[in-house]
Amino acid sequence: MSLTILAGAEAQAARSVTSDWFDRRLNRPAGWAEATTGVAVRRFVDGETASDLGTRAGAEALARAGLRAEDLSAVIGASGVGEQPIPAFAVLVHRKLGLGNSGIPAFDMNATCLSFLLALHHAALMIAAGEWQHVLIVSADIASAALDPDDPETGPLFGDGGAAVVLGPGPGGVEAFSLRTYSTGAEAAWLGAGGSRLPARDLPALLAEATFRMDGRAAFRVASDHIGPFFEDLLARAGWQRDKIDLIVPHQASGRALDLMVRRLRLDPARVMRTLHDGGNLVATSLPTTLIRAMEAGRTPPGSRVLLIGTGAGVSLGGVCLTL
Amino acid sequence: MSLTILAGAEAQAARSVTSDWFDRRLNRPAGWAEATTGVAVRRFVDGETASDLGTRAGAEALARAGLRAEDLSAVIGASGVGEQPIPAFAVLVHRKLGLGNSGIPAFDMNATCLSFLLALHHAALMIAAGEWQHVLIVSADIASAALDPDDPETGPLFGDGGAAVVLGPGPGGVEAFSLRTYSTGAEAAWLGAGGSRLPARDLPALLAEATFRMDGRAAFRVASDHIGPFFEDLLARAGWQRDKIDLIVPHQASGRALDLMVRRLRLDPARVMRTLHDGGNLVATSLPTTLIRAMEAGRTPPGSRVLLIGTGAGVSLGGVCLTL
Repeated sequence: MSLTILAGAEAQAARSVTSDWFDRRLNRPAGWAEATTGVAVRRFVDGETASDLGTRAGAEALARAGLRAEDLSAVIGASGVGEQPIPAFAVLVHRKLGLGNSGIPAFDMNATCLSFLLALHHAALMIAAGEWQHVLIVSADIASAALDPDDPETGPLFGDGGAAVVLGPGPGGVEAFSLRTYSTGAEAAWLGAGGSRLPARDLPALLAEATFRMDGRAAFRVASDHIGPFFEDLLARAGWQRDKIDLIVPHQASGRALDLMVRRLRLDPARVMRTLHDGGNLVATSLPTTLIRAMEAGRTPPGSRVLLIGTGAGVSLGGVCLTL
Repeated sequence: MSLTILAGAEAQAARSVTSDWFDRRLNRPAGWAEATTGVAVRRFVDGETASDLGTRAGAEALARAGLRAEDLSAVIGASGVGEQPIPAFAVLVHRKLGLGNSGIPAFDMNATCLSFLLALHHAALMIAAGEWQHVLIVSADIASAALDPDDPETGPLFGDGGAAVVLGPGPGGVEAFSLRTYSTGAEAAWLGAGGSRLPARDLPALLAEATFRMDGRAAFRVASDHIGPFFEDLLARAGWQRDKIDLIVPHQASGRALDLMVRRLRLDPARVMRTLHDGGNLVATSLPTTLIRAMEAGRTPPGSRVLLIGTGAGVSLGGVCLTL
């Protein structure tokens, strides 16, 4: 209980694509892509890398916090998919922030769409222990790198983006953290190519799994089976009542996933922050982006109780009860 | 201060390759590869994936600890390079351990060769906080997937392998942890292909960076510049004297890197555990493998002070002062 969010900033990708582009490309009636996914516009990079986006967001978040990069105790990378396998994503951002000779630690945490929750929780532990002062968490995902625009399930749903948050000691804190993994659903969100299983020397095998695949129905089923007890357990650990949550910041998985969550958990829709419409599902970058937009909209005054919650590849469910 | 290592186990890859194979392949005199790298034999997989190795090591470590997989509070993946980008490595191991419906959290931490130190430290924090009881840390690397056997610097140096450690509450603990990153050396260890920067749709660019590259001299220089003060600071934080360290478990970067460390830090060579000769540099799997072999050799009695230390891509330096 000694945490505050000092600042946050988004880095939007350069190129906007509205949903009517997908309607035409996929030969669907006008309004189909937006109605199906809940996304009106998503942005795709035009040459920028994930560490470019992450660095832009990180530098802006530091400026808003009134800090220099040298003031940081650590840089944690919390993306869904890294920029490259070696070195870690946080190292690339660290260098672009001018920290090359600083010795400030840089490493990554990964639970795909829920990576930001892991990093937030780890930073809270380290700040509470007095080991760290200021921490930069950086998420950036270039979903378009592995997206098939002609797949009606994933093509119009995802977008590219970066987001960064600066944490420091303060009056708030993480009241409860939970991550639950149901790997029976491991194939519900799958990107096979890019690790040691499919080396580039076996190109046909690599190319066969180079595109992100999602079985939304399977992911939905796992989430639907478990999110009720997961939510009750998380609230109980924090000692929170459902109606005392001031703001819910969910992972922006899809319009249907958000609707399911609101219904299943009997949430007040007015307290649920939605950013899906403008940007799409940004993989691990959705949670910090949605939190940052809530901050910018004045929805996170000191003392407010914020629930960050979501589901991601694994299938995992994750949540943080955060007092600001 | 409430940690113990309950058990650990290695999973060796199937195929042994002795250094004379590299001598012949690279047209060098007999004994060259072993003299240059310090490696007599390394093992390469024959169809097994990283999660196969990690699961084999994890199941054996659990059996040795007298635990069932269901008794775990978490599975942390701590490899250098993942099996694939989505889902996390720990999820794949989780499923193969039969935990599919368990809800036990599974996620990854990554600082390339130093990932195990991050996971060990995070688990220690969570066990000390009473949040977790038993934790499985799993590392597995298939270096051969991105290795050029004809590169004299990297070809004969690395090997494939898996290792897992089970942690629980106990009388010991992490007395100090440190990670320091000098990203001026970011390109000293580099694998470009496999993330969002080089999508499979741009094959020539991907193939140009599909092989691991190492500038050993540059990595060596960063380590050499910083390891002295890094070590002094780490010991001071733990309140340890150099001559009171019972055992040093280093990352097995290379014979030269190990020699440099012993010389620079004025360590007693008899207290430095070396496994490089039999297996090579196993990327993130070297640190747990070396710890496990020390345990099996009876070199980690209760109460002993063990220093885990190493350098990795980043360039990062990492260390943990561990009392057993």
